[in-house]
Amino acid sequence: MYSLGMIRVAVAIAPEVRQLLEEDPHELEEFLEEIHDEDLADLVGMLAKEEGAKLLETVSPEQAARILERLDDERQQELVEGIGIESIAPIVSEMRADDRADLVSMLPEAMGESLLESIEKVDPEAAADIEELAQWPEDSAGGLMTTDYVSVTPGMTVAQVIEKIRTEGTEAETVYYVYVLGKMNRLLGVASLRDLLLAKPFDNIDDVMVEMVHVVSPTTDQEEVARTMAKYDFSALPVVGPGQRLLGVITVDDVMDVLTEEHGEDVQRIAAIEPTEEGYLQTTFWTLIRKRLVWLCVLFVGSFFTGTALRAYDDVLAAIETLALYVPLLISTGGNSGSQSATLVIRGLAMNEVQLSDYGKIFRRELGQGLVMGGVLSVLGAVRALAWGDGPLFAGVVAVTLIGIVTMGCVVGSMFPLLLRRVGLDPATSSAPFIASVVDVFGILIYFTVAKYLLAEALRATGVAP
Amino acid sequence: MYSLGMIRVAVAIAPEVRQLLEEDPHELEEFLEEIHDEDLADLVGMLAKEEGAKLLETVSPEQAARILERLDDERQQELVEGIGIESIAPIVSEMRADDRADLVSMLPEAMGESLLESIEKVDPEAAADIEELAQWPEDSAGGLMTTDYVSVTPGMTVAQVIEKIRTEGTEAETVYYVYVLGKMNRLLGVASLRDLLLAKPFDNIDDVMVEMVHVVSPTTDQEEVARTMAKYDFSALPVVGPGQRLLGVITVDDVMDVLTEEHGEDVQRIAAIEPTEEGYLQTTFWTLIRKRLVWLCVLFVGSFFTGTALRAYDDVLAAIETLALYVPLLISTGGNSGSQSATLVIRGLAMNEVQLSDYGKIFRRELGQGLVMGGVLSVLGAVRALAWGDGPLFAGVVAVTLIGIVTMGCVVGSMFPLLLRRVGLDPATSSAPFIASVVDVFGILIYFTVAKYLLAEALRATGVAP
Repeated sequence: MYSLGMIRVAVAIAPEVRQLLEEDPHELEEFLEEIHDEDLADLVGMLAKEEGAKLLETVSPEQAARILERLDDERQQELVEGIGIESIAPIVSEMRADDRADLVSMLPEAMGESLLESIEKVDPEAAADIEELAQWPEDSAGGLMTTDYVSVTPGMTVAQVIEKIRTEGTEAETVYYVYVLGKMNRLLGVASLRDLLLAKPFDNIDDVMVEMVHVVSPTTDQEEVARTMAKYDFSALPVVGPGQRLLGVITVDDVMDVLTEEHGEDVQRIAAIEPTEEGYLQTTFWTLIRKRLVWLCVLFVGSFFTGTALRAYDDVLAAIETLALYVPLLISTGGNSGSQSATLVIRGLAMNEVQLSDYGKIFRRELGQGLVMGGVLSVLGAVRALAWGDGPLFAGVVAVTLIGIVTMGCVVGSMFPLLLRRVGLDPATSSAPFIASVVDVFGILIYFTVAKYLLAEALRATGVAP
Repeated sequence: MYSLGMIRVAVAIAPEVRQLLEEDPHELEEFLEEIHDEDLADLVGMLAKEEGAKLLETVSPEQAARILERLDDERQQELVEGIGIESIAPIVSEMRADDRADLVSMLPEAMGESLLESIEKVDPEAAADIEELAQWPEDSAGGLMTTDYVSVTPGMTVAQVIEKIRTEGTEAETVYYVYVLGKMNRLLGVASLRDLLLAKPFDNIDDVMVEMVHVVSPTTDQEEVARTMAKYDFSALPVVGPGQRLLGVITVDDVMDVLTEEHGEDVQRIAAIEPTEEGYLQTTFWTLIRKRLVWLCVLFVGSFFTGTALRAYDDVLAAIETLALYVPLLISTGGNSGSQSATLVIRGLAMNEVQLSDYGKIFRRELGQGLVMGGVLSVLGAVRALAWGDGPLFAGVVAVTLIGIVTMGCVVGSMFPLLLRRVGLDPATSSAPFIASVVDVFGILIYFTVAKYLLAEALRATGVAP
């Protein structure tokens, strides 16, 4: 009975495992049987490459497979190299169908092919499965699904179905649903183990199964799969091809990983980082530079336009020096309101709460929000300008500019993600800082237009305005 | 067999349901039995208040309960008011234990209490359960758990346990795990239905159950619960109190909702919005204003310091007018690098990949990243300054400032979330724009310090520097 958080279990057992690895592999095997595979995967992640390889060779191929399927790509490849293709093939063939297909596709091509050949020798069926699953993109329903499910034929009794679950259950990834298949693997219905237990042993499966089944196609995006399963509380979702042929089943554990992964990607894209596949400390220094620097350069070049905009008003700027002092304050406020609006719309699109066709409603809403929030901030801004002793006329410039900038920020921030979605791009991509750049330039234009108008007299005095 | 996405099912059936509601409630009941409860919940969300109430009264209390438990707080309250406390009590008592406790706690206090009294009359056990569950905070393990689980006593045979699942299974939220309880409800072990099916009927449950069980306390934060379950692929997690007394069980469907909810909150907090509970279009105009305006004002007041910083250098700014033209470009670049670093660290903390104790490692990493990225951007910036005709000395000012600003952005951006976590706050809270404000002020200080040093001669010529 334990409630240790996360990686701490692995840290706690590491010294003992290291010692047993050296001294007593047999006792090690017994010791490791008691530990959760996820904790062992953490442990292998912490050990040196050779120690990890030795550990996997010590435990049974089944347990080694369960550990291997939980490791990240990099560590998996290290272990394939460390243990050797010939010796790791029996372990890989024991892995879950979806994970072993992912492992083979992730390896460099030559290594992947020779591993596939070795697997074919020990388990031809597994090799065929890998080839079948490897054809789908990694981030699609096809890339998530497993072929390890229990299927039965129509007309069987509940008792026969339960007996089939008992015999095939150790292999299957989920035993909590059985799939009733007709000719050509056509999906006719699904029965949950719960319904089977509640039915009578001699009931016909055709009467127990549910025929109205939610299905997805193998090319459905993994994010949509995850959202569907979360919405309907499904713990497994069938993937069908043409003619309702059952291709595989997606289980809830894989979907939770997708939710976590997509979350991380969204957050990173909003902050203008190419999504990283691994944790912050696991990603190498230069990979991280690459993921950040490209967007940083794009945004930097985009910001050149703020200089261009300011240059267009350099006579005004020179005539009234106070103007320059408010530039950062005003444009960052526009950027903040814009990134709020963008985030709300990106989130709404991701959750399917907002559709492209709602653009008119969103536009009106953001226009209203911008006017109200700009109005409140304009009071604060005017008070600050008066306190700094810049005079009532200048306070008026700041106030009017704020209303304009915040409203513009809200409108640009909310419309830009819709535009990205409209042209088929991910609305989250770099939105917040990109919007900030656009809003900066527009903000400068609004500011100086207002200033030229309200401060016309002062400008005439310096000879800038006619 | 259907694969319609999301809310479209509800849209498709709405006209027919509306018509049947008017004309033939009996046929409606039969029609609705075929539809997934989640789709019916979408439908009730679309109907007028009175239509929704009528629909719930048409179907069986069990189905009405399954629909009601899927609706959001606001709609639930509307229906309680529409149907009336007396008539809705039997429906609420059929809801899942965790959902009905949430419903009662969400209602205004007087309404909640009189509903609880009415439930006590129809189902005293349900009322006791509600009071038991309502004592835990909504976002804790206690707030997520249900008391609808199957428990057995030690010494029972596998056949007896399966028989118990058959009789209690319709009530329980999950039948895929049974909990073996000793005296005082002490949790001794867990057996999965899969293991029970694979065991022999006369095996003793004590030999089938797993004793090393992951448990959480009722006060554990829901985000930690979700992360644990996602990591270990658990589909149910027991919640225990003192003496390992089993208080309830958290099931995977509730956890998927938590992941989605926490995701939305994080994204909003990063963009300086108080998390909204409902979708963008469902949140009222003024609620949205309130959630945005507070932070916008805080950030606005924070930005006053950019004005203060610029005022400290207003003689330099007046002497060399070109300086003002680069302010937005330079400070927004600092802000962008800062928000990248902040996002990476916030994400790392949320995923437990990064610990507070890693601060030294993170500091060194970000310092290095800042220097490299600042170096690349300084080349771009210098080229741009030369192209604008601002001269090589000025290009040097821009280049040196960029190295300083990007490095400072990375360091401040990465350290600030660690600081928030250290003092016990959520690292995501408003981080990105807040960091942008801080980085803006520091950026101005760096810029003018560099300019004063490198442009000393030009400044002397204008009489600003000695």
